[in-house]
Amino acid sequence: MILALAGGVGGARLAAGLAQVLPPQGLTVAVNTGDDFEHLGLHICPDLDTVMYTLAGRHDPAQGWGLAGETWHMLQALQALGGEAWFRLGDRDLATHLQRSQRLREGASLSQATAELCQAFGVQHAVVPMSDQPVRTRVQTDEGELAFQDYFVRRRCAPRFVGLRFEGAEQAQPSPGLLQALQAPGLQAIVVCPSNPLLSIQPMLAVPGIAQALRQRRVPLVAVSPIVGGAAVKGPLAKMMMEAGQAPSALAVAQHYAGLVDGLVIDEADAALRPAIQHLGLQVCVTQTLMVDADRQRALAQAVLDMVARR
Amino acid sequence: MILALAGGVGGARLAAGLAQVLPPQGLTVAVNTGDDFEHLGLHICPDLDTVMYTLAGRHDPAQGWGLAGETWHMLQALQALGGEAWFRLGDRDLATHLQRSQRLREGASLSQATAELCQAFGVQHAVVPMSDQPVRTRVQTDEGELAFQDYFVRRRCAPRFVGLRFEGAEQAQPSPGLLQALQAPGLQAIVVCPSNPLLSIQPMLAVPGIAQALRQRRVPLVAVSPIVGGAAVKGPLAKMMMEAGQAPSALAVAQHYAGLVDGLVIDEADAALRPAIQHLGLQVCVTQTLMVDADRQRALAQAVLDMVARR
Repeated sequence: MILALAGGVGGARLAAGLAQVLPPQGLTVAVNTGDDFEHLGLHICPDLDTVMYTLAGRHDPAQGWGLAGETWHMLQALQALGGEAWFRLGDRDLATHLQRSQRLREGASLSQATAELCQAFGVQHAVVPMSDQPVRTRVQTDEGELAFQDYFVRRRCAPRFVGLRFEGAEQAQPSPGLLQALQAPGLQAIVVCPSNPLLSIQPMLAVPGIAQALRQRRVPLVAVSPIVGGAAVKGPLAKMMMEAGQAPSALAVAQHYAGLVDGLVIDEADAALRPAIQHLGLQVCVTQTLMVDADRQRALAQAVLDMVARR
Repeated sequence: MILALAGGVGGARLAAGLAQVLPPQGLTVAVNTGDDFEHLGLHICPDLDTVMYTLAGRHDPAQGWGLAGETWHMLQALQALGGEAWFRLGDRDLATHLQRSQRLREGASLSQATAELCQAFGVQHAVVPMSDQPVRTRVQTDEGELAFQDYFVRRRCAPRFVGLRFEGAEQAQPSPGLLQALQAPGLQAIVVCPSNPLLSIQPMLAVPGIAQALRQRRVPLVAVSPIVGGAAVKGPLAKMMMEAGQAPSALAVAQHYAGLVDGLVIDEADAALRPAIQHLGLQVCVTQTLMVDADRQRALAQAVLDMVARR
């Protein structure tokens, strides 16, 4: 059994690759909920939805998030009403948010609501939130502290990144599904997907029960670098690293994850960094990491599984 | 200045006719909110929306409610998720509910939220809720008491009608806009639109401040019969009257409104009922009341205004 820790698009793609090579009971994907927020009265979980839509094969392949063939009639109408239209809510995607919000109001946990949605979408592998308690990523910037979606979507990551705070993390517990996977006798490895280490993985590590379980693990923990050739495949990671005074590179990712992971998967473009990363005490696997299609998703997943099987 | 009391489709059509012949400052439409309900976390005001969409010329003319050219992608997606899809929520219509709910959460009154929405829709005449406090119509049936939308939409008025209860009406006050119209020195007449007397008008009369102001009025109050030729133009009124032991007819409407109104507008199809209605002490105007298009809406509105001007 494999446990994958995932954020948004990059995490969802590797999760989809792992789902291609592992049976349903052989994979649990634990997803960042630090990006979750309340908007227009809806409980929105961007990363959970991206993973769910991707595993269901229903995602928009061009933009990575949202549903394929989506329409935007509600959003256009909301804009005409002067409403808060800065967060892109597709018409079909709205049903997910309305249904999740309704189930939470009825007393369901986020884990329950997620399981029901995944079942309705035909997702067979386990997709679980990192926690059922709210953890809210707050981004400290040169313009002050911003709620995550204010920084990420409304301001398009324009303010200079200074640091992060994970509101509620101290009080949060790992979700039942994540805890079960972490404690499963059959657990073979933990994979940190090529998600943003700061925005997608750090919120999980901020939950004491998750950090502790990862420290006490008896199985290999490997990460896939989201930085390829000095640039982030998607998202603001490279910009954030530079603003934090660090040149974005797979080596910087390795330095960030050193002490947590046993190995790092890096792209062929970064093969020259192998010795420096090994010098940090990490095992290194060099392969093609750009998951441009389902075949490459599966190939990367297989490379990761081969790496942990070799240990 | 004319004050119109309106419910859903029939009320909206006469309101649109009055809006054709009266200047913006010459008409206030006070709308039933007894049908309002919370659904999927949204604050939905079916009658306010029907009046607003109709006055904006944005309504679906075929079904009478909702927006023209509407799509149903959210609803189809919600149905696929096993969600509560029994109430027809169109994609564009959703923006109205989301925006209203957001404004109410932010502390706006229903009157404020309604005024903002009407302005965004380009509605120039005043459309106001009957009250800013919640009044909820409960329908007593042979299967027990049902929330209005459960009776009206979910059960399609199938249970036998026994009676009505208007939860919250005793504690409710007329909305500021309705009160202002009722007390306006320039008020010339009050018109009860051809809405369901039981479901659309009764909730207003259940608000003590509205009933009192109508009793103390110094201007004519006339109603338009929603029953034409023994049948309701739209909706369950005829069925409800029969279940209440009354043959549906313009005379029965006159009997219902006797003591409240000074006159009744009836359709040419019901001209034979004129003496019996006059016998109740009501003035009678016989005209074409089926508002099949904008011209007939205007013609009926003009007939109503002529009737009150003659008094």
